[in-house]
Amino acid sequence: MTKHKNHHTALHEKDGISRPESVSVTSIANITQLRKKQPTADELVKGILEHNKTALSRAITLVESTNPTHLEKAMAVINQCLPYANKSVRIGITGVPGVGKSTFIEAFGKHLTSLGRKVAVLAVDPSSSMSHGSILGDKTRMEELVKDENAYIRPSASGDTLGGVARKTREAIILCEACGFDTIIIETVGVGQSETAVHSMVDFFLLLKIAGAGDELQGIKRGIMEMADLIVINKADGDNIKKAKLAKTEFNRALHLFPAKSSGWQPKVSTCSAITHDGIADVWQVVNEYFEMVKDNHYFDAKRADQNRYWLTETINEQLKSSFYAREDITPLLEQYKKAVQNNELSPFAAAQFLLEKYFEK
Amino acid sequence: MTKHKNHHTALHEKDGISRPESVSVTSIANITQLRKKQPTADELVKGILEHNKTALSRAITLVESTNPTHLEKAMAVINQCLPYANKSVRIGITGVPGVGKSTFIEAFGKHLTSLGRKVAVLAVDPSSSMSHGSILGDKTRMEELVKDENAYIRPSASGDTLGGVARKTREAIILCEACGFDTIIIETVGVGQSETAVHSMVDFFLLLKIAGAGDELQGIKRGIMEMADLIVINKADGDNIKKAKLAKTEFNRALHLFPAKSSGWQPKVSTCSAITHDGIADVWQVVNEYFEMVKDNHYFDAKRADQNRYWLTETINEQLKSSFYAREDITPLLEQYKKAVQNNELSPFAAAQFLLEKYFEK
Repeated sequence: MTKHKNHHTALHEKDGISRPESVSVTSIANITQLRKKQPTADELVKGILEHNKTALSRAITLVESTNPTHLEKAMAVINQCLPYANKSVRIGITGVPGVGKSTFIEAFGKHLTSLGRKVAVLAVDPSSSMSHGSILGDKTRMEELVKDENAYIRPSASGDTLGGVARKTREAIILCEACGFDTIIIETVGVGQSETAVHSMVDFFLLLKIAGAGDELQGIKRGIMEMADLIVINKADGDNIKKAKLAKTEFNRALHLFPAKSSGWQPKVSTCSAITHDGIADVWQVVNEYFEMVKDNHYFDAKRADQNRYWLTETINEQLKSSFYAREDITPLLEQYKKAVQNNELSPFAAAQFLLEKYFEK
Repeated sequence: MTKHKNHHTALHEKDGISRPESVSVTSIANITQLRKKQPTADELVKGILEHNKTALSRAITLVESTNPTHLEKAMAVINQCLPYANKSVRIGITGVPGVGKSTFIEAFGKHLTSLGRKVAVLAVDPSSSMSHGSILGDKTRMEELVKDENAYIRPSASGDTLGGVARKTREAIILCEACGFDTIIIETVGVGQSETAVHSMVDFFLLLKIAGAGDELQGIKRGIMEMADLIVINKADGDNIKKAKLAKTEFNRALHLFPAKSSGWQPKVSTCSAITHDGIADVWQVVNEYFEMVKDNHYFDAKRADQNRYWLTETINEQLKSSFYAREDITPLLEQYKKAVQNNELSPFAAAQFLLEKYFEK
C-alpha cells in the first residue's frame, strides 16, 4: 500500500510556486472519510453477531469480491463467525424455469417466518454472469418475503465459475447462520451442474416439479431425481389438482425403484399450490420429519462433517486445475493436443503425459 | 542391479581356488535368452495387427505394468495401434453381485460369436486389488466363452486407483480393437464409482437386474439407472417369468419419467434368461437398434470425440491431484486441516488456501 514511500532517487523537484489543486480538497476529504468508514473485520463480525442485516450484506459482498486484498479480510470474518454457524437447517430447492420456484419459495418462506423462523434465501446460479441472473436476479420476484424482517434474500454471486460461486455461497451460509438465520434456503436452476454443488452444501434436497403432458420432466439434468429427498408437485390448483395427484402416484412408484439413501430416508412426493398455499404446511412437515430422523440417527452431523471435508478437497482440486489450465504456455498446447486426441492421432493418456511434463518442468 | 560393483574397500580376497558356481550356467543362459525374447514395441504391434492373442495379452500386460520403464514402450504400442482401433461397438455391462453377470456375458458373448462377431471382455474393478478380484478374477467363470477362439477375456487390472484401472482399460480397448475385436464388453460391479468411468468409455450402457422382492434394487449406486440405455432383467425363467415381466412394466414406467437422453434414445427394458438363453437374441437386437440410430444421427462419433477429450482432461486432473496429495510435506498437514475443518474451527476454503500456499511455495 505504501509502495512508493521510501524510494531513493537522485531527481528532486525544486520548491516553487505551488500548483492549484486539480481536485477539490473537500472531495478528497469525503472519499478518505468514506474509506475510513469501511468496517473492519471485527466490526463486521460484531454486526453479524448482533443480527444486523446491513453488516451481513457487507460481509457477503466482501466474500464475493474478486479483489485479492479483500480475501484475507473475508477469511478473517468467516473464521470468526464459524463458532456461531452450523445451527440451522439447510434446504436446497431446484426445478427448471417455469415450475414456479420463486412463488414457491415466497409462500414457503412466509409460512416459516409465520412460525417464528428466520429464513435466508441464497442462490447458486453460475450462469447469472452471462444471462444477468436467471434466478434471484431481481429481488422484486419475492416481494412479500423481501419485506419480511425475519427474511433475508441474496441473489447469486456472479461473474465466476461454478466453483467460485459455490465457494461464495457456502461462506454466505456461514455468515447468515452467525447472523441468526435458522433456515437457509439455497435456490438453483435444475438444468446445469450446480445441483451437485448445492446438494453437497445442504441437508435436504427438494425438487420442484409441475404435472403436465409428460414433457414437464424434460430439461432437468439426469441424476437430480435421485438426489431429491422430496419431490413437490407445484401448481396443484384448479383444473390441475387431478393431474398433480396422478403425477404424485407416478413419482412415488418411481422413487421406490431407486436405491435406498444412506440417510435411511425414503424420499417422498407432495403436491402444493404456491398460489392458494394448499400443501405448503405439509411440505414443511415432511422437511421436519426428515430432520428429526437424521438428527436422531446422527446422519445429520456425519453428513455436515463429510461436506466440510468435501469442500476442502474440492477447493484444493479446483485450484490445482486452474493453476494448470490458466498457464499461458499450456493453453495453446492443450488445444493442439485436444484436436490430436479427438482425431485418434494420439491416445489421451500420452497427450496428458506430454502436457504434464511441460507443466511440471517449470 | 549392479549396486555393489564399484564400491571401494580396503578388504580384498586373495585369489585362491575358484568356488563352484552356485547356480547353473545353463540356467543363467536360458534366463538371459528369455529376457532377450521380450518383444519390441514394433513386434507387439505387428502381432496385434495379425490378430495374435498372445501379442495382445503381452501388450496389455505392458500397459498394466507399474514399472516406469515400461511406460514409454506401452505408449509407443498404443499410438501405433490407434489408427486401427475405434472400429467396434463398446458395451458397458453393470449389475450388483448376484444378478448373474458372468452367466449373462457368457450367453451374450456366445450369441455374438455365433453371429461371426469377435468379442473381447474386459473388466473395471478397482476393488480387485484388495478382494483379489470380485469380478473376472477367475476366468473359469466363463468356461465356454474362454474356449471360443473368437473371444478374448481379460480380468481387471489391479493394485491401483480407479483412475489407474480406468486408464489401463481404455488402452486395453484400443489394443483389442487393433487386434480385430469388433465387440468390446466392459464389465463392472454396480456398487462403486466405476460406473461413471465405464460410462465414459463405452457407447452403450446395459444395466443387469433381477426381479425380486423389492430389495433387488438396493445396493446399486444412485444415478446408474439414469445412465442405462437398456435395463435387462435376468433370470426370467421358470417361476420367475411372471415377476420379471412385472418388473419390466415397472421399469418401463420409471424410465419414462427420466429426462430425455442427448443421444435421442429412449432407454428400453428387456427380460432374458442367461440359462435358457431366452431373450438373449432380443438384447442384441436392441443394442443393434441403438447403434443404427446413433450412427445415423452422428451421436456415435460425437460421443467418442467427447470421450477422448474427457479422458485427456481426466488424466491431467488425476495427475495434478496425485502430485499434491502424495507430497510428503502435505499429507500430515492435510490430515490436521481436515480435522479442523470437520470440527468447524476453520472454513474449508481457508484451510485449502493454507495448504495450496505450502504446495506452490516449493
